[in-house]
Order: sequence, then C-alpha cells, then structure tokens
Amino acid sequence: MPNTAIKTSYLASFFPIIGWLKTYNRQDINGDLLAGVITAILLVPQGIAYAILAGLPPQLGLYASILPPIAYALLGTSRTLSVGPVSIAAIMIAGALAAPEINALGNPLQSALILSAECGVMMLVMALLRLGGLVNFISHPVLAGFTSGAALLIIGSQLPQLVGLKAPSCGADLACYNAYLSGINTPTSLISAAALGLLLFFGKPLTGLLKKIGVKLAIVTAISKCGPLLVVIAATLAVSRFNLTEQHVAVIGDIPAGLPKLSMDLVNPEKWRLLVPYSAFIALIAYVESVAIAKVTANLRGQKIIPNQELIALGVANIAAAISGGMPVAGGFSRTMVNFSAGARTQMAMLIAAGFLSLAVIFFSPWFAGIPKSALAVIILVAVFRLVRIKHIFHTWDYDRSDGIAELVTLLGVLILGIEEGIALGIVLTIASNLRKTSQPHIAIVGRVPETEHFRNIKRHSVETWHHLLLVRIDESITFANISFIEDYLDSELRRQPNTKHVILIFTSVSDIDTTALEALELFNQALQATGKTLNVAEAKGPLLDKLEKTDFIEQLKPGKLFFSTEDAVKALG
Amino acid sequence: MPNTAIKTSYLASFFPIIGWLKTYNRQDINGDLLAGVITAILLVPQGIAYAILAGLPPQLGLYASILPPIAYALLGTSRTLSVGPVSIAAIMIAGALAAPEINALGNPLQSALILSAECGVMMLVMALLRLGGLVNFISHPVLAGFTSGAALLIIGSQLPQLVGLKAPSCGADLACYNAYLSGINTPTSLISAAALGLLLFFGKPLTGLLKKIGVKLAIVTAISKCGPLLVVIAATLAVSRFNLTEQHVAVIGDIPAGLPKLSMDLVNPEKWRLLVPYSAFIALIAYVESVAIAKVTANLRGQKIIPNQELIALGVANIAAAISGGMPVAGGFSRTMVNFSAGARTQMAMLIAAGFLSLAVIFFSPWFAGIPKSALAVIILVAVFRLVRIKHIFHTWDYDRSDGIAELVTLLGVLILGIEEGIALGIVLTIASNLRKTSQPHIAIVGRVPETEHFRNIKRHSVETWHHLLLVRIDESITFANISFIEDYLDSELRRQPNTKHVILIFTSVSDIDTTALEALELFNQALQATGKTLNVAEAKGPLLDKLEKTDFIEQLKPGKLFFSTEDAVKALG
Repeated sequence: MPNTAIKTSYLASFFPIIGWLKTYNRQDINGDLLAGVITAILLVPQGIAYAILAGLPPQLGLYASILPPIAYALLGTSRTLSVGPVSIAAIMIAGALAAPEINALGNPLQSALILSAECGVMMLVMALLRLGGLVNFISHPVLAGFTSGAALLIIGSQLPQLVGLKAPSCGADLACYNAYLSGINTPTSLISAAALGLLLFFGKPLTGLLKKIGVKLAIVTAISKCGPLLVVIAATLAVSRFNLTEQHVAVIGDIPAGLPKLSMDLVNPEKWRLLVPYSAFIALIAYVESVAIAKVTANLRGQKIIPNQELIALGVANIAAAISGGMPVAGGFSRTMVNFSAGARTQMAMLIAAGFLSLAVIFFSPWFAGIPKSALAVIILVAVFRLVRIKHIFHTWDYDRSDGIAELVTLLGVLILGIEEGIALGIVLTIASNLRKTSQPHIAIVGRVPETEHFRNIKRHSVETWHHLLLVRIDESITFANISFIEDYLDSELRRQPNTKHVILIFTSVSDIDTTALEALELFNQALQATGKTLNVAEAKGPLLDKLEKTDFIEQLKPGKLFFSTEDAVKALG
Repeated sequence: MPNTAIKTSYLASFFPIIGWLKTYNRQDINGDLLAGVITAILLVPQGIAYAILAGLPPQLGLYASILPPIAYALLGTSRTLSVGPVSIAAIMIAGALAAPEINALGNPLQSALILSAECGVMMLVMALLRLGGLVNFISHPVLAGFTSGAALLIIGSQLPQLVGLKAPSCGADLACYNAYLSGINTPTSLISAAALGLLLFFGKPLTGLLKKIGVKLAIVTAISKCGPLLVVIAATLAVSRFNLTEQHVAVIGDIPAGLPKLSMDLVNPEKWRLLVPYSAFIALIAYVESVAIAKVTANLRGQKIIPNQELIALGVANIAAAISGGMPVAGGFSRTMVNFSAGARTQMAMLIAAGFLSLAVIFFSPWFAGIPKSALAVIILVAVFRLVRIKHIFHTWDYDRSDGIAELVTLLGVLILGIEEGIALGIVLTIASNLRKTSQPHIAIVGRVPETEHFRNIKRHSVETWHHLLLVRIDESITFANISFIEDYLDSELRRQPNTKHVILIFTSVSDIDTTALEALELFNQALQATGKTLNVAEAKGPLLDKLEKTDFIEQLKPGKLFFSTEDAVKALG
C-alpha cells in the first residue's frame, strides 16, 4: 500500500527512530546491548561529575542522562550520538550561575532548569526559522580553540579539588596565599593520587595487557571503560571504611532517591530574560559540537545527519531535561566515541543506557552520597585532558595561517576574557579574515599550453604567450570588496607590458559582478579605450551573462568583445 | 643625467604637480584659464552657501576655496578635481555642530576648524597606514543611497529659508504650527521665486537658445555657469534698492574683509576627542566621494588616480583649510564636472580660480553682507537636487537585488536614523550580504561539449554526460562559510543520481580550501567510500596544490585521484 509507505516515510522524517526500528534485527541488538551497558557505566560517574562541575547538585547530571537521551533517540538523525551532560556545557553553566546578576536572584537549581528550557526553546526556534546555517559561521579552528580553552578552564577549576582546597576567602597577598595552601588535605590528595593511578592504568596499560593475553576486543573495550566506575566505587569504599569524612574529605552528600519528578518550576520571567545571552551561547555550542561529532560517526558508516532535524531533537532533549529536573544536554564527544566503538548500531543503545541509569537512580542513590569529590575531579580531569589540543593549533597554523591565528586567539580569548567573549572574538575574527581573503582574490596571467586549448598560469606552466595580448584569469566573483585589488593588479600588469593591445578577462571563476564592480569595470574600459586598447571578456558563465545583458556593458566594450572561450578570443585577436 | 631624472620622478611621486608642469604648454593655459574663471564664478556663491548650510559664517566657505585647492594642486593626482566646500560635507558639519555635546562647548567656529584639522590628520594617518583599502568596503550603492539621503536632508533644511521661516520655537501642536507658518515672509518668497526662475533659465533653456543662435560651445558653458553669480548679484541689488532688510528679508551680514589670517586656534583637547566620530565619517565620505569623481574624469582622459596619494593631498588640503580659517573640504562632484567640461587640463585651472577667489575676498567682501539667504538657499537647492537619484535605486535593484536593497536601506537610514547611522547601516548590510553571497557559491554540474575538451554547465549547454560520473564545478574558494552549502548540494545531487560511482570536483575556480572545509571534504570522502564511491579532484591550481600537499588529503582520496584536467579524469574513469 503505497499510501501507508508515504505516511511512514513522512512520519519517519519527524521521528527518525521509525526508520531504523523497521529493520531492527538480532545483530543490531547484540551491538546495542553491550554499547548501552558500557555507556551507562560511563554515564553514572560522568553525570554526577559534570553536575558538580557546573556547581549543581549531582542529581541534575543523572536526571539529564535519562529523559533527554530518550527524547533524542526518538527524534535524532544520528544513530550513535550519546546525549547527556557534557563537560564544556557544564563549565558554561557554572559561568552563567556565577554571574552576579543571576546569582543575585538566588535558587541556582531553578536557574539551571531555566537554562535547559531556554536552550531547548532557542534550538526549536532556530529550527523553525531554518537558521541552522548560521552556525556555519563558527569555523572548525574557532571551535577547536574554544574547546581547548574551555578544557583548560575546567582543568584549572578541578586542580584545587584534587588536594581538597576550597575557594580562597581572602585577597591576593602572599600571606593569604600561604594560608590558602595550608588548607591542603592529605587524605584527599592520597585518594586523588590513587584514583589517577587507577584511571590511567585502565587506559593504554590495561588494554595493552588484555590484548597481549588474547582477550576479545569487545571485552577489552568493555573492561577499560569501567575505569571511572571502579574508581568511584573504590574511592567511596575507602572513604567509608576509614571514616575519611571525619578527616575533612569532601563527599557529594545526599541525593534524593528515585526517578526525577516531572516539574514545571520554570516560571521566572526575570531569569529567562537575564539568561538569554548565556543560553544562546550554550545552545550554539551544544548544537555545533553535537552535529560535529554526529557527522564524524555517521560518515564512518555512510549514514546521514540532517542538521535541522538535529536542532529539533536537541531542542526537545533540552526541554525534556528541564521538565525532568536535568541540566542542559548535548552530544558528548568521548562518550559518543565509546558508544560507537563498543558497537552501538542504533539509538537503542542509548535507550538501554537510559534504562540502566533509571535503575541506578532508583536503587543506588543512597550509595552516591559517600562519593569523594576528589575522585570525581580526577575523572573530569582525565576526560577533559584530551580536549586540550595545543599541537592542533600548530597543525592548523601550518596548513592555513589565518585559521591558526583564529584558533590561537579564540583559545587566549576564552582564557583571558571569558568563555562567551572568547568565542565571539573568534567568530568576528574569522568573518573579518574571510572578508580580507575575498578582497584579495587570486588572479593569474595565463598562456596556452602548447597544442591544446588549455590556458594555464604563466608562473606555473610553460605556455605560449602573445606580447600584445594580456590574458587575465580572475578566480573569484568581482564585488565592491575586491574590485580595487583587481584594478591595481591590472594597472600594474599593463605598466609591465606596455605593448598590450587587448586585455582579455577570463571569467571561468567569476559567478557574479556586483554594481560597484560593474561601474569600476566600465571606468577601466574607458581608460583602456582612451589609450587605444580594448577590453574583452571570455568564458563568462550563464547567470552572469543574464545579468550583464540587462546593462549596456557589452555594448560599451566595442571594439572589445565577448568571447565564448579563451581560445576563441586568442584566435580572433592573436 | 639619469640621476636628476630619478630625483625628479621621486619628487614627482610626492608632488604630482612636477609631472604636468614640466610639459605645460600654451594649449594647456588656454583651457585652464577659461575653466579657472568659470569655476571661480561658481565657487563664490557656492562657498558662501555651503558655509551657511553648515551653520557657519560665510567666510569659512570662501577661505576653504583658497588655500586648500592650492595644497591639492601641489599634491593631488587628479588634474581636474575641484577641491573646496561641498554640500554633503556641509550638512555633516551642521550635524556635528548641532550635536548636544559639541554645542555645549560653545565657539562653533573653533569646532569647525578643529573638524577640518581632524579630518586632515585622519586622512594622513590612513595614508601612512596604507588604509586606503578600507574605504573599499563602502560599495557604490551604499554611497549612492547615502548621497541621495543627504541631499534630501539638505533640501529639507533649505525649504524654510525659501520663504523666510525661522526654526519653530514651540512644540508640535496645530496652533503652534499655524503660528510658525504665519511667519512666511512675502518679499523673501518673491526673491526665491525670481532666483529659482532665473537659475532654471540659465540651465537648459538658455544653453539651448545660445546653441541655436550658433554661439561657440565654450562660451555657452561659460555663460550658463554664471547663473548662480548673477542670481546673487541681482538678489543683492534688489534687497539694497528696495530696502528689503527692513521688511525682514534675511541677509548674510558682515564678512571680515581681506585674506584669511593664518590661525592656530585649534587647541581644545576635549573638542578633538568629542569630534572624532564626526570627523571620521566626514573624512571617509570626503575621501570616497573625491576619489570617485576624480576617477571618472581621469578615465575619460586615460589618466591615473593614486588613492593613497589622494589621501595625502586631501589630508593636507584639510589641514590647510583649518589653519586658514576654512571649513572641511573635498572634491565637489558638480564643480569638478564644470571644471572638466569648461576645458580644464591641469590643476592650473584651480590655482587660477584660487587667485580669483583671493581677489574677491580682498575687494568685494563688503558687498557680500547684503546677499539674501533665500537666494543662497535657491542655489543650494538647484545644485543638490540632481544628487537625489531615486530612479538610480530601481536601476541598481534591477541589476543586483541585494545592491538595490543596500541602496534603499542606506537612503532610509540616513533620513530616519541620521547621516552617520545611515551609512554605517549600509556598510554593515553590504558586508553581511557579501558573506551571505560567498556562503552560497555557484556550483554547476558539467558535461563535455561534444568533440572538444571543454566542460560546461549541463543546464546551459547540450553536453555529453556519463551516468556513473558526477562532474561538479565549484565556482568559489571553499571555506567554513560555504562548505555546508556545498555538502548539501553534493548530497542532493548524489540522491538524484544514485548510480554515481565517481564524484569529480572541478577546482578551476577554487583558489583556497580552509581548515574547516578540508575537514568537511575528508568526512565527505569517508562517507563516499563507505558506500563504495570515490572522490576525485581535477584542475586544482598551483597555490591550492601546494597547500593540500602539506596534508594527507590526496592520500585519503585513494582509490580516488587528483587529475590535471577534467578531460584526464573523464578518460581515466569513463
């Protein structure tokens, strides 16, 4: 019944889950089950840790790992993206909540939920207005610089936790600094050291060992991803066994037991208004980072991400976070890679993970109270450390100087000026540099490759030239932004070749000439005619010809002409 | 002696006057003398009128017509540009002097001189930093919209003068409005009507008549340009003959006799600081308008304008205006055209005009006191009327939609928001639209023109195609700004042609690929490979190849390849 088929495909465009559920099979469930379990094991400590990083009670991270991934599973176009709390958004939330005007309004928990709701609404509005394209103006170098900078900020915020230091309560003098450092707590430091050792061992050393003794790859992956959970369990047991809370080891404290209660405590217009700039930046970053990682995994399997649908899915996921008491969510880079490499084939893996999270929240909440904060700080540090990619700046710099500058400036901007300011600076810089580049187009004087009809740059190929012809290929649309660069170039070439009789502009790459450029070309033509030379045009493309035909430009060129090909021009004038 | 020749040409690059003085001949002096006299005849009433338009004593316009054109004659690269007071700068000066923060500091005459000095300094700094290119970001449509808007503002400011109305002294209610209108002065209105009639008659009707009775063209031009001076003389005589000042006809009042005294009354740091934004915009507009009109006349004679030298010449001319008690100056559009069409061959014409102006100031100053303001308003109206080019917006719109929008928005911005705000809005708009355009590059699916090696758009030419090859020509550099448009295009083409085995990107027009775009192309290649297709590149240009060779992109393409020409690619894959 074709009618049903159309209906299904129409529905499936809103609910991509329908697409993969129809063909879901045994092989899929095998992959998804293992991946779901591993991701859940990772999500519990990550959820708690990122909530604490954001300055929030731990349950906001756990709740954000249940309903939001379910919402995304229904609506998202990525099969392997793991939606939930992420570190970069967490530090941005911390910044928003610490801002004086927000802090003054009290109730940070409500502020966090409003942030989630507002991020979600913004994404949906962007989807409605089809503004997904706006985020294209965040270039990858800016994003990379931003990520490195934010990761460094996170590391800076976690280092004091490792040794049990609280925020300094006095000024910046030396005596105060010494008093501050004297607050180092030995048991906390020991827990951190042990946790760090254990977590690092669960990385390359353990996987290397397991591979060497011939353990299956899937099992190796599964075991190695248990590191964070084991660290948390071991540290919690140590705290409780040795009564370390009496020795001032900070633990996260009580968490309400059971599933989140759906809440609507979101009515506070003043907060909505004040949080707009923060949620705008969080929404932007959450969307850009999610789509970036979704694309990487989708491409590896020849699947397709639809950006506008992603805005809808992430928007609904964030609203789901808000009403289920969770912090803002996004697709996490490392968690998605874990999910993908553990064999996840569809979002079923995330549904399974959400199920396990629910069980954890229902049955283990009382156990979470004793988790030492320093162990979580270690987990955050190890997770975030790989996001700092200083070398990446050099690679970028090497390939494209101005991209490298943008990456470095964004990184420094985030560190020195702040998160939002840093990324805004990076965006402005890339737009300015894009303008500068388009204002200095590539131009080549060309000649004919002997015995062909190909014309190539005289600087790069050995080609035939004619002393009375100046063949100039302009490799960009001609606009107000670049016309005077082009004029200067032509003038200096004409001075170098005073015998020129005919200038032939080759328009293979010119898809548009704007009003300013057209007027300038008319003046240039007048100047040539005043000295007895002609201006000619070759290889103008269709849309451009349509436009020029509305004017008398071609008429003005006479005796100069419009030629179909460069070869025709050379034959006629040569 | 080649050494002297080098020295001369080195000096001539700073003082272009040396260039034309060396070959100055009898023919030149004939043209320059007539043009100089005609321009001087035009300059006297214009100088007085534009000073009054700017809200300044008339001598500031006269003084601005003596030393500044002499400075420009020494340094400028245009042979026919007439530097002096101009209407658009005058209304901008009026705006600056009326701004509350400037007005509060008193002494508007000093403020005007500081504006001149600051404009000059800004131009010199721009010349030093070689920032002349910055003004390229004012597109012609923005400039045209700005000029029309400013001209409309000028007309609006002059209409009350025609009937002798002073600024209303009460609110916006009807009674007040009636009281305001009751201030209409009959003798003033009669003078205006007569002046308008006379001035219009000196336009087409008189020149038509003179041509018909066989008068020589040069003489016709000379006579027709005497209109403004005759209007001023006739109106002044009428005022004095009928004692009209007793009937409240406003006259300009006493002007100090004699040449301007060089003054240095420019020390007021607070004013310098507050005037910065105003002088920046005046300098910008003065420079852009001057270079635009200089280029038009230079091109008609195959001469050359050097933008950076123009910045120096106009900068020194403005400083000369400041120290000789003149208002800011620029090259005037209509006056330059008069000078040019009256036969001016070099700046000698302007030196002659400056000489006549000096004589006028020395001997006729007492006579100027009785000039009625309404006659000057008529002269301004007639001069400015042709700057309002509403039709031009439609022409621009027709050729290039987004340029038309920019022109209209700038015009409306000037009228509604103000002069500086209007042009700023126009500049931002054109930059945004330029970005949008570069983010939607022209892309063509191409095929081979039969029996040639040319590949053309399948939509525009009848060409050979191959069902397993997708030949895509991207007509722009690939950057973060347009890569997602390109990806979407390629995806939709691949969906339309599911049999595609090889995608061939034709890079004739691609002069750069930035980091973001390269990463996206790598992902696109992965996605193709995942479905058994290959990505290939043809016609990549030298600089781009150099850049790509720093990466392993070409390696990643395998089995896809890099081809020299599209023909090679088709031969290998077809």
